[in-house]
Amino acid sequence: MYTFRIVKQFARTLRNLDAVLEKAVKHAEARKFDVNNFCSARLYPDMLPFVSQIRIACDQAKAAAANLSGKEAPKHEDNETTVAELRARIGKCLAFLDTFTADDFKNVKPDTMIRLPNRPGKAIAAEEYLYARQIPNFFFHVTTAYDLLRHGGVEIGKSDYLGPLGFVDA
Amino acid sequence: MYTFRIVKQFARTLRNLDAVLEKAVKHAEARKFDVNNFCSARLYPDMLPFVSQIRIACDQAKAAAANLSGKEAPKHEDNETTVAELRARIGKCLAFLDTFTADDFKNVKPDTMIRLPNRPGKAIAAEEYLYARQIPNFFFHVTTAYDLLRHGGVEIGKSDYLGPLGFVDA
Repeated sequence: MYTFRIVKQFARTLRNLDAVLEKAVKHAEARKFDVNNFCSARLYPDMLPFVSQIRIACDQAKAAAANLSGKEAPKHEDNETTVAELRARIGKCLAFLDTFTADDFKNVKPDTMIRLPNRPGKAIAAEEYLYARQIPNFFFHVTTAYDLLRHGGVEIGKSDYLGPLGFVDA
Repeated sequence: MYTFRIVKQFARTLRNLDAVLEKAVKHAEARKFDVNNFCSARLYPDMLPFVSQIRIACDQAKAAAANLSGKEAPKHEDNETTVAELRARIGKCLAFLDTFTADDFKNVKPDTMIRLPNRPGKAIAAEEYLYARQIPNFFFHVTTAYDLLRHGGVEIGKSDYLGPLGFVDA
């Protein structure tokens, strides 16, 4: 199912997101405003704020790794109020993701039924869970966090989101 | 490499995006404004507009399928100025994606070097191309299109973006 490769990509994208947050910090310093003003930013009044976008991105990655390996995910309280705390949250998520090896996912098959703590009485096939739910959901929240910073004037571009790619001369 | 499954997911997400566009059309009718006003919407003045977000989402999916199968992708001119034309663009992309079978990707290996028309003199390993570039890029543009509509007041939610998922009673 290529699960380990995807979990590694989630970690890589979270590292890119952390570098984007560093750019937001620098931008706020240069413009002399409090970077934490971004924490409550929303694209529409009934949409989840910036803090939630980062938390949920982390949680989607963490849940995918945990639910497809059978390992228990560490619980992270949703209590961040600053960009520094959000970066620490990303760091804790990365520390968990970095514990995984390909071996951890060797027992999961595409049709292995996965039960989710927040969907009692329901189950979903592992392949559907990973490809139709966790991947789209993870990138949704990372992108929306990026979009909120971009909307707020931070000078970031697609290469910050993608990070360095392995192109070689050929 | 799970390439066919990913190409199928790209198609599924584009169908969800088309349904989101249908909601934008209905929203504009109810509020009595021209839905095509969304076409030039941007989250920041130097960011690509809504029309480009849809075009690039389509092109990322199309390019992944073409470059990893060796099939030639149909060329679609970037000349849409209405939501109806953008939906037709999605339709043409889906018609191409729907021609693929698992067999089309059987020759591509993780370390197969892929050359891209817009990166002359460079190549990238197929696995890196798919997981680090095409997947994040595709979902980036779909999400940004969604975010622009959400920012513009269209009543859409995460379930529109994800579409129906295969949960069963268990």
